[in-house]
Amino acid sequence: MANITKKVSWSSRGDESGGGERTPLLNGSEEVRYSRQLSGDGGMFHIGRLSTVDLEEDMTSDEDSVRGCPKEIPHNEKLLSLKYESLDYDNSENQLFLEEERRMSFLGFKCLEISRWVICGLIGFLTGLIACCIDIAVENLAGLKYYVVKQNIEKFTEVGGLSISLILWAVLNSAFVMVGAVIVAFFEPGAAGSGIPQIKCYLNGVKIPRVVRLKTLVVKVCGVICSVAGGLAVGKEGPMIHSGAVVAAGVSQGRSTSLKKDFKIFEYFRRDTEKRDFVSAGAAAGVSAAFGAPVGGVLFSLEEGASFWNQMLTWRIFFASMISTFTLNFFLSIYNNKPGDLSSPGLINFGRFESDSVAYNLYEIPLFIVMGAAGGLLGALFNILNYWLTIFRIRFNILNYWLTIFRIRYVHRPCLQVMEAMLVAAVTATVSFAMIYFSNDCQPLGPDQSEDYPLQLFCADGEYNSMATAFFNTPERSVRSLFHNPPGSYNPLTLSLFTLTYFFLACWTYGLTVSAGVFIPSLLIGAAWGRLFGILLAAITPNGSVWAVPGKYALMGAAAQLGGIVRMTLSLTVIMVEATGNVTYGLPIMLVLLTAKIVGDYFVEGLYDIHIKLQSVPFLHLEAPATSHWLTAREVMGAPVTCFNRIEKVGTIVDVLSNTSTNHNGFPVVVPVAASDDLGKICGLILRSQLIVLLKHKVFVELARSRLTQRKLQLKDFRDAYPRFPPIQSIHVSQDERECMMDLTEFMNPTPYTVPQETSLPRVFKLFRALGLRHLVVVDSENRVVGLVTRKDLARYHLGKHGLEEMQLAQT
Amino acid sequence: MANITKKVSWSSRGDESGGGERTPLLNGSEEVRYSRQLSGDGGMFHIGRLSTVDLEEDMTSDEDSVRGCPKEIPHNEKLLSLKYESLDYDNSENQLFLEEERRMSFLGFKCLEISRWVICGLIGFLTGLIACCIDIAVENLAGLKYYVVKQNIEKFTEVGGLSISLILWAVLNSAFVMVGAVIVAFFEPGAAGSGIPQIKCYLNGVKIPRVVRLKTLVVKVCGVICSVAGGLAVGKEGPMIHSGAVVAAGVSQGRSTSLKKDFKIFEYFRRDTEKRDFVSAGAAAGVSAAFGAPVGGVLFSLEEGASFWNQMLTWRIFFASMISTFTLNFFLSIYNNKPGDLSSPGLINFGRFESDSVAYNLYEIPLFIVMGAAGGLLGALFNILNYWLTIFRIRFNILNYWLTIFRIRYVHRPCLQVMEAMLVAAVTATVSFAMIYFSNDCQPLGPDQSEDYPLQLFCADGEYNSMATAFFNTPERSVRSLFHNPPGSYNPLTLSLFTLTYFFLACWTYGLTVSAGVFIPSLLIGAAWGRLFGILLAAITPNGSVWAVPGKYALMGAAAQLGGIVRMTLSLTVIMVEATGNVTYGLPIMLVLLTAKIVGDYFVEGLYDIHIKLQSVPFLHLEAPATSHWLTAREVMGAPVTCFNRIEKVGTIVDVLSNTSTNHNGFPVVVPVAASDDLGKICGLILRSQLIVLLKHKVFVELARSRLTQRKLQLKDFRDAYPRFPPIQSIHVSQDERECMMDLTEFMNPTPYTVPQETSLPRVFKLFRALGLRHLVVVDSENRVVGLVTRKDLARYHLGKHGLEEMQLAQT
Repeated sequence: MANITKKVSWSSRGDESGGGERTPLLNGSEEVRYSRQLSGDGGMFHIGRLSTVDLEEDMTSDEDSVRGCPKEIPHNEKLLSLKYESLDYDNSENQLFLEEERRMSFLGFKCLEISRWVICGLIGFLTGLIACCIDIAVENLAGLKYYVVKQNIEKFTEVGGLSISLILWAVLNSAFVMVGAVIVAFFEPGAAGSGIPQIKCYLNGVKIPRVVRLKTLVVKVCGVICSVAGGLAVGKEGPMIHSGAVVAAGVSQGRSTSLKKDFKIFEYFRRDTEKRDFVSAGAAAGVSAAFGAPVGGVLFSLEEGASFWNQMLTWRIFFASMISTFTLNFFLSIYNNKPGDLSSPGLINFGRFESDSVAYNLYEIPLFIVMGAAGGLLGALFNILNYWLTIFRIRFNILNYWLTIFRIRYVHRPCLQVMEAMLVAAVTATVSFAMIYFSNDCQPLGPDQSEDYPLQLFCADGEYNSMATAFFNTPERSVRSLFHNPPGSYNPLTLSLFTLTYFFLACWTYGLTVSAGVFIPSLLIGAAWGRLFGILLAAITPNGSVWAVPGKYALMGAAAQLGGIVRMTLSLTVIMVEATGNVTYGLPIMLVLLTAKIVGDYFVEGLYDIHIKLQSVPFLHLEAPATSHWLTAREVMGAPVTCFNRIEKVGTIVDVLSNTSTNHNGFPVVVPVAASDDLGKICGLILRSQLIVLLKHKVFVELARSRLTQRKLQLKDFRDAYPRFPPIQSIHVSQDERECMMDLTEFMNPTPYTVPQETSLPRVFKLFRALGLRHLVVVDSENRVVGLVTRKDLARYHLGKHGLEEMQLAQT
Repeated sequence: MANITKKVSWSSRGDESGGGERTPLLNGSEEVRYSRQLSGDGGMFHIGRLSTVDLEEDMTSDEDSVRGCPKEIPHNEKLLSLKYESLDYDNSENQLFLEEERRMSFLGFKCLEISRWVICGLIGFLTGLIACCIDIAVENLAGLKYYVVKQNIEKFTEVGGLSISLILWAVLNSAFVMVGAVIVAFFEPGAAGSGIPQIKCYLNGVKIPRVVRLKTLVVKVCGVICSVAGGLAVGKEGPMIHSGAVVAAGVSQGRSTSLKKDFKIFEYFRRDTEKRDFVSAGAAAGVSAAFGAPVGGVLFSLEEGASFWNQMLTWRIFFASMISTFTLNFFLSIYNNKPGDLSSPGLINFGRFESDSVAYNLYEIPLFIVMGAAGGLLGALFNILNYWLTIFRIRFNILNYWLTIFRIRYVHRPCLQVMEAMLVAAVTATVSFAMIYFSNDCQPLGPDQSEDYPLQLFCADGEYNSMATAFFNTPERSVRSLFHNPPGSYNPLTLSLFTLTYFFLACWTYGLTVSAGVFIPSLLIGAAWGRLFGILLAAITPNGSVWAVPGKYALMGAAAQLGGIVRMTLSLTVIMVEATGNVTYGLPIMLVLLTAKIVGDYFVEGLYDIHIKLQSVPFLHLEAPATSHWLTAREVMGAPVTCFNRIEKVGTIVDVLSNTSTNHNGFPVVVPVAASDDLGKICGLILRSQLIVLLKHKVFVELARSRLTQRKLQLKDFRDAYPRFPPIQSIHVSQDERECMMDLTEFMNPTPYTVPQETSLPRVFKLFRALGLRHLVVVDSENRVVGLVTRKDLARYHLGKHGLEEMQLAQT
């Protein structure tokens, strides 16, 4: 079961190095008791609920060693993994914190505010720089590759033996992709894919392990260069966004745990609240650098990180985005030998649509809507195919796993992954070559030599093979030529063949263990069929000059296809507008994207959401399901709750923290009401991480009495331990110390948010989501703790085809 | 004191018609006991606090009749008025509501969702239509006026006697403005001004009386047409935004209380939560129609209504904006005789900046920043002058009021207001005429006759007076010509004189009792000095062709000036980009706006915020003041709280509701703990409006027993009474009935949000703001009600120059 998840896992390390497969088991029938479909049509029901268990991140990935065989193969998307934790977005306002805040002068707050702006500037600058490096590296490597292959093809076109060129091309592609896949599969599996689903989850409040580490960044950057240069049907945009997020998480903390380097700056920001805010700025800066779309970047962050938004933060995000585009444009303008010319059209990603060619008319609106619907359909098809493929990969992996169990070591998983990636690279090259070879779509070379690598092949002198413009090029350049090449550059057959093959190639490619995004391939597919649509339209309408601009339809097709796959609307509209440098198409793009979303949502979710579900991430949607007013906090909460007393025995605390079967992360602190009553009255909430720091520093009542000079524990001690708090096992507590007492009063959050147990689920959900909580204490009318609501309790409920459904919780 | 507020009041009716001035008094030393400045530098302190009093809207404006003299004239911006109520954004999830939700099928929710989309479409359509009407009416009326005046001037230029032309112009202007001012001053004073501050407050959660009424809409639309056609230094954009909001509030309720017409549709949406969401869509649609900026509209709503945002809502807002632009463009394209051509550059508000003229270079970035700083300074100056002027108007009004007191009726206030507006109109015409008359800046007429009303005056044949392009035109067209006229169209002296005069005229005009916005005048001032800056730059740099495009600097100047006055950043950037049809300038515009905001904020707040403060509106900012961790819920809450029992005597309820000295709006429902204890345990929260409906329907325990067939009260009854719940005085309760009991269990919200009394102010603030609460119950550890936090308790604290300050509460 472990590697079922591992295969598609973003987070797990390659853990075969230890020799055998390790299996954190879905504890079959014990843990997942039962789940029941709720229909919203009335009638009373009772929902069996599971105790809510939070697992410590590093422990899970490093320490688990439970072995066993999966009893059955559950559908992953019907499960919620207990592996993921929430971010502590709600600040623990304990006495230490309040004292610090109260000590701080007005000037101190001003300084903090200024450092936030400085950090955002830095984030923007570094993200822009990284994007610039990726851009230049990809361009040069791909340029070199295409140059070599082109020379070779030209050499062999006359004399025959083009199969050698094919082999050269395939080998070059596979070599690049191999490097990219090896570093991802063996060093940092978390760097696989586009990274956008991970960032979505992080902004949603889920702590995805290793997603914002320095190592992930390095592997991601190198990986994406290799995979784009290797000619896969991928884009570099998703990884850029992820890179921005990692940069933000690193810069804002003023230290690197990986490099063991602490700059002793920005210490105030070492908590989840601040870090998440900066990560949203980083993601925005990434979008901004990837598409040259600063406003689009801000909107992306807003669409994904919606609930925690505030205006000051938005302005800082905006600043980071701005600096990022600015940095990128500045360095690219130097690279393009026009230093300082920031308005160069070359800096617009998909080429500027000039104003005179962008007319559209009311009659075209229905056509755009049809294109949007087509994009929604094709996007849904893409997503369904990709979903099946992912499931197939999981199944295949299970087979491989069974072979491993029976000691017939078939092959290591990372090796398999690398081989698959190389296979895809070789197939891509072969298919492309075949397409180009069998195509007889020759176009005259323009006077301005606008093609980057025009392949003459079997065309007459002064002509080039039009199929090669699409296939013998980086995807981004292909998009550009589909948008902007004059009418007649492509014939319909070329475009239909290209659409068909690229569709399946891109679908196969997304999910490989390489660092790569899906934006550009989607745009490319859409641009191809959009242009085809435009050409056909021009053919059947004899007179109109309006229909004669296929680039316009290519743009709409691109928007429709991308919208159908990823299902963003507002941010995508702005990104498309900024990336094409023209606002005139804003309105049609919006229409197309909205239509694509509505049509696509009818069939299947967006690609990122599918992959998030396959990861069993407890993702909180915007609102509770509409029909969930039936449920109250009493039904959804976890109970009984492990509570501590204000002054608690160290032994008890250590035992509770060490209990791997529960592994709670937040503990209400209570005052006992009466001896007979086992429910205590709430007086605070303390986190596992805080208790660990307290244990580490041995903040015991007895010691404080004996050692009068003992240094008082400060907030700094908690910040220093953040974010990788040591596991409880690493803290030695002697038998004597176990008998000591700990006073939690000063360290607990004395005013946790609470709800009465009669509160309806939507109301609980609203509070939880709006404040970004991790634990919400449920109390009775006497203020006694009766339960605890965490993310999994809320994320479990979703609207299925038959009304409200409840997902199972699993330890995977 | 009454009319001190009334003069600048958005909300009050013209209430002199009754004969004398009525004065809801600031009850001097009794009510406002004292306020104390808190400094954040340590030390203990105790804050005297005031009981929090909510006044019923309609009652205040219709019923108050306390008379008296103001003892002193307080600075209004240091007061918080108790006149304003909060919206009930937090839904009262009582048993009736839950039953209804639970009865509703999944299909029912789908239908609701679809109706929300339909409503948003309608809102967009109607807003676009209204904007279109305003556009066309203004253009035709102003065209007619300028045609008449131009004919007259041409007639008299040769023969002398231009003073007749001046008088004609001034009279025409005054006539238009008189109509506009009369309808505003006498019929609906709430329609004065741009409406944006009111919408800001509404989206912030403050119920501004009469702001979303049909009458306001009608007066607003007619008023703005008159004032723009009357040649005032005003724009029509602010009123368009307000119109969108009114349309939204009307359409979403499916009825008009003013027209006494109930369409029996959309009944589900008759509550504050839904209404506010639709109003934000309406405001966005308004922006979208005003500037042709759908994305800018969405961002405007987000910037203003930040805290309550969610993604589904954003998409609907986006849809409304889109439909609005679409409708406007469609009808305008018909009007311009290019039916269906939606991409016509004429639909871009400030004219499209063509791509070839929009180059900018790195060296110019510092210049842009300097322009931003200048805009911030000039904006601050504008705001300070306007602030003084407003204060002067208030003082003048007090003088007038004293004269009224002593029966020396000086003049009715509305008459004064109309006279002032007419005076400004006449002065504007005179100054403009003088400027044109004394200007000798003649420019050759272009071959394409791009000027709309070229005045030849004393220029040679084939030339026109360049000063007239700026003054003898609607402000919007002047902006357009400053942006786009070729270099050399204006000489520097013309521009400096124009900037200077228009600056003061605009400053004087904003605050008049006419319906008019400040966007376009600000842009015009900025465009003028920006173009001047560009010309001077071109003069001192001999070689560069980059500097030779003054239109670019005009655009930057316009952005800087507008940013310096209103202090928006993100939404304004997008609005400017969409309104000029070019994204290349996105980055510099952002820089300029950010700089202008930072510089301007150093001196004084934005214009809208100043006027909100002068209105003493309890506006909740984004976050609690940084240094307010000192304060806890115990210090800020209102106590003691008027509570009800679950089963309460009707007489008690009627007495409490009738008590005008407290006039609470929300009442915790409690269960008594012990006979000795006067604090009860919280078990719910009930609103005044709910109690009123209950009393009206006589939902008494005794009656229910006797009349078994009595119809059960439904949620529909509450919705029918919304939003104008009758005052308690209008409900007759007999002496017998006073002895009956009312069971509140079914109608109260059983799960109100609560906080412990130790919660820090920032934490309380966050909860309150994030959930859009109106009442937040403060409880002790036994869950007993010890206090109630409302909007005024939180809005009172703000960061002054010397740390945390507390504002006084006043009944005005």
